[in-house]
Amino acid sequence: MEGREQQGRLCVALVSGGLDSAVTLAEARAAGFRCVAVSFEYGQRHIVELEAAGRVAKALGAVEHIVARIDIRAFGGSALTDDIAVPKDRAEEVMAGEIPVTYVPARNLIFLSYAAGVAESRGAGDIFLGVNAVDYSGYPDCRPEFIEAFAQCAGLATKAGAEGGAFRIHTPLIEMTKAEIILRGLELGVDFGLTHSCYDPDESGRACGRCDSCALRRRGFVEAGVVDPTQYSPEFR
Amino acid sequence: MEGREQQGRLCVALVSGGLDSAVTLAEARAAGFRCVAVSFEYGQRHIVELEAAGRVAKALGAVEHIVARIDIRAFGGSALTDDIAVPKDRAEEVMAGEIPVTYVPARNLIFLSYAAGVAESRGAGDIFLGVNAVDYSGYPDCRPEFIEAFAQCAGLATKAGAEGGAFRIHTPLIEMTKAEIILRGLELGVDFGLTHSCYDPDESGRACGRCDSCALRRRGFVEAGVVDPTQYSPEFR
Repeated sequence: MEGREQQGRLCVALVSGGLDSAVTLAEARAAGFRCVAVSFEYGQRHIVELEAAGRVAKALGAVEHIVARIDIRAFGGSALTDDIAVPKDRAEEVMAGEIPVTYVPARNLIFLSYAAGVAESRGAGDIFLGVNAVDYSGYPDCRPEFIEAFAQCAGLATKAGAEGGAFRIHTPLIEMTKAEIILRGLELGVDFGLTHSCYDPDESGRACGRCDSCALRRRGFVEAGVVDPTQYSPEFR
Repeated sequence: MEGREQQGRLCVALVSGGLDSAVTLAEARAAGFRCVAVSFEYGQRHIVELEAAGRVAKALGAVEHIVARIDIRAFGGSALTDDIAVPKDRAEEVMAGEIPVTYVPARNLIFLSYAAGVAESRGAGDIFLGVNAVDYSGYPDCRPEFIEAFAQCAGLATKAGAEGGAFRIHTPLIEMTKAEIILRGLELGVDFGLTHSCYDPDESGRACGRCDSCALRRRGFVEAGVVDPTQYSPEFR
């Protein structure tokens, strides 16, 4: 559906190009919102993410897609932006409950803050974010208590908040498993072939199949009993 | 004093190039902190600010100066980043208590979030910010209740917070008038000739003398009974 024909309240949806944020954008559309999709060029090693974000925003009918440069690499500290090796083939027990080297300090805080700025500039009071507290329990900024604190803080930070308005931060996936997210996405018509989750894709942009993000995604498709449309690198067997 | 010779705990200090953040950095140094100065290239119309920030960081002995690009212009909405005219020659009553067109949506929220990321990456738990609730009462993100909410939120967003640490956000100027800030800066040895406050400098980087920021700064020097070292444009009489 073309943007200009849409009705409904405006929201800001953070779209990374990954599976979770695609389902989140679809949830926002299903709830009747017109969506401003926002993606970040933050010095990530794998720019193929942003191409996926553009495809997802278009396919799901975002009225606008903002790609903002925020140079998080200037402070470093993560395997996603620096020359730290992305861990591969880790067991589930190892992934769970620890803060991984792929953690980017304060990333969701920075991204949500930017989203609040976009929302205020567009007159929107709703922000959709695809965080998940089940699969990513090791990331502090995916916890519900952080999201609640942020909504409060962002209301105080902005003109809308100063005038009595407040932001509503929607995290429809926060309590869902990856398999549940995939099944919900299929219900909503999300084409997962457009999405990209891998932390360490090959030169053609194909997924490595072995990083934590690939492992979670693969397991999600298996548990959902759904065919995985991901293009894996030929080196992954 | 050279960075490598310094002792003390590390902090992050946001340095805009203006008068307030220079005094704030000096306060952090006087309190015994080693300081990572952070400035933003956010699409501001007057890049002369960043040159001033570099001079201030160096003169006050910051151990490191990070200039990060955050493209706030991508969402627009302020006379500081867009082609909206900067207001001139406004009476005090007009400036006070309203949200001016120079307000950039969620700017302090975005900047503090970035500072929290830098702090976490460097192992610092303290952030210094030169906000002021007296002169800038119209900016929602200069209010003490916002600062308190942010400290809480940033603690929850980060690894340090998840492990029981919390951020301390220092706003030493928050209750001071501009004249008090100037007098305190002089006590601390700040050279205000290095700083830049104007929203609309001329081509040589000289202050217009007539925007809200110039007006507050000029009045501050008058009230402090101190010579104003600002280089004003010859058009300003």
